[in-house]
Amino acid sequence: MNDSELEVGIQSAYMQALKSFNEGGVPVGSSLMVDGAVVALGHNQRFQKGSNILHGEMDCLENAGHAFDLTQSTMFTTLSPCQMCANAILLFGIPRVVILDNTNVTDFKTNVDYLREQGVEVIIEEHAPSMELNRRFQTEPETKGLWLGDVGK
Amino acid sequence: MNDSELEVGIQSAYMQALKSFNEGGVPVGSSLMVDGAVVALGHNQRFQKGSNILHGEMDCLENAGHAFDLTQSTMFTTLSPCQMCANAILLFGIPRVVILDNTNVTDFKTNVDYLREQGVEVIIEEHAPSMELNRRFQTEPETKGLWLGDVGK
Repeated sequence: MNDSELEVGIQSAYMQALKSFNEGGVPVGSSLMVDGAVVALGHNQRFQKGSNILHGEMDCLENAGHAFDLTQSTMFTTLSPCQMCANAILLFGIPRVVILDNTNVTDFKTNVDYLREQGVEVIIEEHAPSMELNRRFQTEPETKGLWLGDVGK
Repeated sequence: MNDSELEVGIQSAYMQALKSFNEGGVPVGSSLMVDGAVVALGHNQRFQKGSNILHGEMDCLENAGHAFDLTQSTMFTTLSPCQMCANAILLFGIPRVVILDNTNVTDFKTNVDYLREQGVEVIIEEHAPSMELNRRFQTEPETKGLWLGDVGK
């Protein structure tokens, strides 16, 4: 993956996070790239669909369907994956994950070391706009409850 | 949970598996009980909805929505949970899981020990009708491919 593709993946995931934030939802977005193409996008759907399980990564995996070889894919996510999403990544055999915020993770168990131990290449690219969305949503009084509900608190 | 409630949970999960089997889908069903009531049902949706992520347990969790205290619930599943589902169970704080087939598990990593290490009470009730559905679906030529796809193979 070259720098240009990396940047497209990052921006694509971030735009999903921003979309969700502007809809009043949990601002975690995700994108999947295969062979230099963005093949799926998704964002957290707790607010929009009342979903328990559609975190950003899960929504993106669901949208990918069965058409692509995910064992050759790269997943981008604007927040460090929770244990459900990390294990979905492993189940699908995704070899590389790019995390845009590994900082706003105080409310849940992160899985960077775990993914690496399982052979996944984890790239942490602290992306200021993604981090700012997470920081705001997780800490502002009007959204903190929605956020905590999403991580099982 | 008394024996009568246990039996209701088992039958409810099994009927979901049978429904999915009769629809041509992966025959894994799930039920959730809280305070002696069945509060949610679900089954694998790979065939029916073309879903990647809606294993039986995930579909059931999604159907539960946010209305119930899952930290007081019991999840029934007709097949031993994969790593995605096991970690969803942990994320939602579900304290007890009843597994109706811990035998037809050769194609994926099981998580009974892992769940127990994390404090979940795991009850294995080998349930012949559930096991028979899994055995048939996993081994018969016309369905084996759908099954393997569902566990990332």
